Amino acid sequence: MHIDVLTLFPELFPGPLGESVIGRAARRDLATVSAVDLRKWAVDARGMVDEKPYGGGPGMLMMADPLAAAVEARRKPATLVVLTSPRGEVFDQRLAMELAKERHIVLITGHYEGVDQRAIDLLVDREISLGDFVLSSGVIPAMAICDAVIRLLPGVLGDDESSVGESHMDTLLEYPQYTRPPEFRGVKVPDVLLSGDHGKIAAFRRKEMERVTRERRPDLWEKYLSGNGKKGFEK
Amino acid sequence: MHIDVLTLFPELFPGPLGESVIGRAARRDLATVSAVDLRKWAVDARGMVDEKPYGGGPGMLMMADPLAAAVEARRKPATLVVLTSPRGEVFDQRLAMELAKERHIVLITGHYEGVDQRAIDLLVDREISLGDFVLSSGVIPAMAICDAVIRLLPGVLGDDESSVGESHMDTLLEYPQYTRPPEFRGVKVPDVLLSGDHGKIAAFRRKEMERVTRERRPDLWEKYLSGNGKKGFEK
Repeated sequence: MHIDVLTLFPELFPGPLGESVIGRAARRDLATVSAVDLRKWAVDARGMVDEKPYGGGPGMLMMADPLAAAVEARRKPATLVVLTSPRGEVFDQRLAMELAKERHIVLITGHYEGVDQRAIDLLVDREISLGDFVLSSGVIPAMAICDAVIRLLPGVLGDDESSVGESHMDTLLEYPQYTRPPEFRGVKVPDVLLSGDHGKIAAFRRKEMERVTRERRPDLWEKYLSGNGKKGFEK
Repeated sequence: MHIDVLTLFPELFPGPLGESVIGRAARRDLATVSAVDLRKWAVDARGMVDEKPYGGGPGMLMMADPLAAAVEARRKPATLVVLTSPRGEVFDQRLAMELAKERHIVLITGHYEGVDQRAIDLLVDREISLGDFVLSSGVIPAMAICDAVIRLLPGVLGDDESSVGESHMDTLLEYPQYTRPPEFRGVKVPDVLLSGDHGKIAAFRRKEMERVTRERRPDLWEKYLSGNGKKGFEK
């Protein structure tokens, strides 16, 4: 997979993405992330790419022309064009798995005040929001999307850190975990985890996943009960 | 406000946070973000801070001891201790506004396989999740939280980019926006935006916010109708 990040802040990439699994994916040639400077397609020699919105309002909008030219310079027939946007679909693990099937993604880091709607209508296949909060730009959302997607690619994670069973894969939250020492400030690790009985440990963890999800995220718990979760119960 | 980010990757901060509003907040002394290297509180000379989970399972857990020592070294009586965690409350603008009231936050970037539960129980005031997707670490979520929170502090944003009226402040999505040129590849800017009639423009935008929200995010639309949205309609 290759991801071209079209951005006004190319110097911020790979940034945190260079660490851990993403750096490893690049070294193994499984995935690469390039930052492409949108200002290369500026409308004038001063590097202009944004302008005040028609009808008034705060801030500056990304202009349609430089964005369209940048996307068209990188896009191939099978490319998926994604824009980070507070108006997009909310990013989740299901969406990360869909994106992980792509060969080439052009990922536009949305300008924080917005992008001319005509460029979106013409060029963008999917708008993705990281969540219902406001950030200064699409840089951090783009980093999150790259990370979540690339770590799903076959071979990126080692066998001992497989993405199966991780939080949100089956809509249950993670069970509580413990490591050495067996006693920390008077609090002991639950006995079952030291028992060596794999069946009991698995049952304990499953129960804890259900408890934590029910207590903390009634919305996920509902989803779990109504979806494949029911099948899980019948096993 | 001051945020101490406790992390295994201090070199990644401020990173993207140095740009735009966060850098400006620091220069104006409105908010500062420091990265604190968790390995300073390692349990041995080799810098050990993580260990295999009891009961088996993939990856390495953050040990309770170094984390507790690090938090206790930075914590003052009024400090809020936050851990990024896939099991936490889902971050949203309401939560960003709550955090923006704090004076000092210790923000722990969760280890990607998890943290010893005893350290969480003992030390952490709030666990926050960026959303229902899996990332390699808590670094990107911590950056998102810092950005969303700091830009809400009084004086950080200029008058022309006030955070009032932004997406997710009142649970409606942003209206479509347009800028120069008036015609782009045959598509014109909606006439009303060029009319100069501020009342008509405001009404058009309000209607578009409602349409976009209804079409794209039925969940937000429901919230809007059942909450303060109704009051908005009566105005």
